[in-house]
Amino acid sequence: MTNKYSTISFLSDYGTRDEFVGVVKSVIYEIAPQCRIVDLTHEIEPFDVRAGSLSLARAVSYIASGVVLAVVDPGVGGTRRAVAIEVLDGKGVFVGPDNGLLAMAIALAGGAGRAVCLTNTAYHLTAPGETFAGRDIFGPAAAHLCNGVDLAELGEMIDPALLLPGVVPVPREEDGVLHGEVTWVDRFGNCQLNIGPDEITDFGDVVRVEIGSLMSGASSTREPVVRALKVVRSYGQIGSGPGLVVDSYGMLSLCVDRGSAATELHIGQGDLIMLSTATEKVTTPVRLSPTR
Amino acid sequence: MTNKYSTISFLSDYGTRDEFVGVVKSVIYEIAPQCRIVDLTHEIEPFDVRAGSLSLARAVSYIASGVVLAVVDPGVGGTRRAVAIEVLDGKGVFVGPDNGLLAMAIALAGGAGRAVCLTNTAYHLTAPGETFAGRDIFGPAAAHLCNGVDLAELGEMIDPALLLPGVVPVPREEDGVLHGEVTWVDRFGNCQLNIGPDEITDFGDVVRVEIGSLMSGASSTREPVVRALKVVRSYGQIGSGPGLVVDSYGMLSLCVDRGSAATELHIGQGDLIMLSTATEKVTTPVRLSPTR
Amino acid sequence: MTNKYSTISFLSDYGTRDEFVGVVKSVIYEIAPQCRIVDLTHEIEPFDVRAGSLSLARAVSYIASGVVLAVVDPGVGGTRRAVAIEVLDGKGVFVGPDNGLLAMAIALAGGAGRAVCLTNTAYHLTAPGETFAGRDIFGPAAAHLCNGVDLAELGEMIDPALLLPGVVPVPREEDGVLHGEVTWVDRFGNCQLNIGPDEITDFGDVVRVEIGSLMSGASSTREPVVRALKVVRSYGQIGSGPGLVVDSYGMLSLCVDRGSAATELHIGQGDLIMLSTATEKVTTPVRLSPTR
Repeated sequence: MTNKYSTISFLSDYGTRDEFVGVVKSVIYEIAPQCRIVDLTHEIEPFDVRAGSLSLARAVSYIASGVVLAVVDPGVGGTRRAVAIEVLDGKGVFVGPDNGLLAMAIALAGGAGRAVCLTNTAYHLTAPGETFAGRDIFGPAAAHLCNGVDLAELGEMIDPALLLPGVVPVPREEDGVLHGEVTWVDRFGNCQLNIGPDEITDFGDVVRVEIGSLMSGASSTREPVVRALKVVRSYGQIGSGPGLVVDSYGMLSLCVDRGSAATELHIGQGDLIMLSTATEKVTTPVRLSPTR
Repeated sequence: MTNKYSTISFLSDYGTRDEFVGVVKSVIYEIAPQCRIVDLTHEIEPFDVRAGSLSLARAVSYIASGVVLAVVDPGVGGTRRAVAIEVLDGKGVFVGPDNGLLAMAIALAGGAGRAVCLTNTAYHLTAPGETFAGRDIFGPAAAHLCNGVDLAELGEMIDPALLLPGVVPVPREEDGVLHGEVTWVDRFGNCQLNIGPDEITDFGDVVRVEIGSLMSGASSTREPVVRALKVVRSYGQIGSGPGLVVDSYGMLSLCVDRGSAATELHIGQGDLIMLSTATEKVTTPVRLSPTR
Repeated sequence: MTNKYSTISFLSDYGTRDEFVGVVKSVIYEIAPQCRIVDLTHEIEPFDVRAGSLSLARAVSYIASGVVLAVVDPGVGGTRRAVAIEVLDGKGVFVGPDNGLLAMAIALAGGAGRAVCLTNTAYHLTAPGETFAGRDIFGPAAAHLCNGVDLAELGEMIDPALLLPGVVPVPREEDGVLHGEVTWVDRFGNCQLNIGPDEITDFGDVVRVEIGSLMSGASSTREPVVRALKVVRSYGQIGSGPGLVVDSYGMLSLCVDRGSAATELHIGQGDLIMLSTATEKVTTPVRLSPTR
């Protein structure tokens, strides 16, 4: 049995203020001391499967071949399945809960090949409780895969077509208006949309952006904010105020140069955004953020 | 001299927003480039020796054999001793301040064998100030131990029986009521108690839980909250509201499925909890948390 | 071509709640799997080039020889140059934006030798957008340098004398009063000054410290706070209240034993501090911090 994979790329909602991540790594290195673990992030909001799946999807084309260990797992210990899924080319395996977390990344990585439900307890850690599958099931599975254990050893094979699909936020067009949403607010306050620059070429260099007339969150009843924003290639080209930047993933992001678009525009993950042609000069002033 | 240990498991209250942890690692790798450092956590609250000792105790049975470097050290530069302590089987060494931080973990790892006070300055980093022992004393000691330097080289041997003991929070029984406390609130808001399921088997499947009539903190004078809570094995079995879950360490935790028990029950680390038989149906409604 | 450097020390303002750092590491390991990446910190405040440069300067003498990758880069995608700069002895290379971030650390490491502008796109990652130079330009450059690629291959050589200088905060003396500032507030609330103990030996063991009559920040109009503070070598020697401690970098820091000087004295990064001889007993009581 030769080592099959050398890298485990690890994403979770465990945070770093507890010792969860350190314990999972200790367990993995005990089983597979030769492997390398690369942290993607562990600061996915607790239980936010969708945010985890989007983060994984953004990262996946940059991840080294090997094992991807992803754990955002609100249903731990319940009926959701623990799975490992090979990508079609066999260069990598995704390990995690079957709750939609892995689906988008696997699709981007080439699609699912063989899949297994991690039911073989010989590859689990014996544990006094069932609430830490990262330590007891997922981490050990990732480590054993690095050691060359075949996927089929880890449990009963399942039909990859029956894995829970991810929720891909697709924009829709209606009467010349493109309805999208904010899929990610990064540390800098940049707000990525689920809309690429190719989808708005008809709208011209300056685009009408309407924010907030329809919130995906329930509590807000704010007035819609309408802006005419330039589409640019770098933060420095925005000038003052917000702009639409083709970001590093090739998507449109609402950004402010050396500032936070999320703060300035009062927007957050999941907010709905409408893009259309800026037929007239739009000058609704943005309200400044209250101090917080 | 051959390399003796290959892994350093590192816990501290240094945080990650300063470069403290990176500097300690740089110093270690300069001395022992072949070793691997595994971060347990660095987000122990500043100076909170007790929280650090509990985190270390939870992690210790999962830590690879090798060196454990633990630094929560409010007395740095003062009279507290810097120590290294072998565990009895010789498979590991704990390095840190002699302030109770290491005691519980060492006991769980099999007890203390040889112990040394890190007084040999030949193994220290020369420093312009005395306030960063992790960089100047503890880190280098951990690295030299990995390189095969014997414990006895690092300073004067001391009697392990004279090391400062840890404060182990032991529950007590009084008139059929078990008095415990919240020892850990994790990122998800789960509140671990210092009580295991074996200690409450007489109370039945539904347990009377009283929170907050006696707070360990001084400022609060809130009304006690009384609940009848199910004892279950996974978050999904709780149903709505809080429950008592046998957690991944085999202890009882107050939990809310896909929510925060700490927020819902207004409880925190150190709060006192009383468990007893639920003789009658208890239905005190929990007050909802104010938004924060 | 043999491997030239084995370690990349990595500092940024990327934070850890997004997957930025993990993606940069994945890119680096894909190019240079044999290297080791040591995180200094990624929690530099967004866009705070000065805080990043100070953090790097504090760490630099402890960093292993090799590549230093530093990215605090508000001008990404704009006209600022992406550079790599060898230190004079050839033992290390700094990779990052030419915006002053690297200057102080390079000076402390022995000064700049050869320098190159990272214009050779053969060593870039092809990317759909220009806003993530850490992933597309800096990270790959660091990895290729580890693989033994010569600096001159990475782009056009530039005159190191024309690199943007850093802003070194130098204290000044006026009428027997030393005017300095708070250059760093660490996790524990210790406030490092740009003043060393050698500069105040004439002032005696107890020093007059004036805080806040001139704020570098614009909004505050608070009364100056005047204190007579002891100069000591460890936190435990301070006693109650704040003191001046010779910190682990050999600089003076305003500190409180097992507490936060920043909170107790209401001071922050950039605040001006005046030190002078304590001619009379100064007893202005400090206002206690409001709870926050």
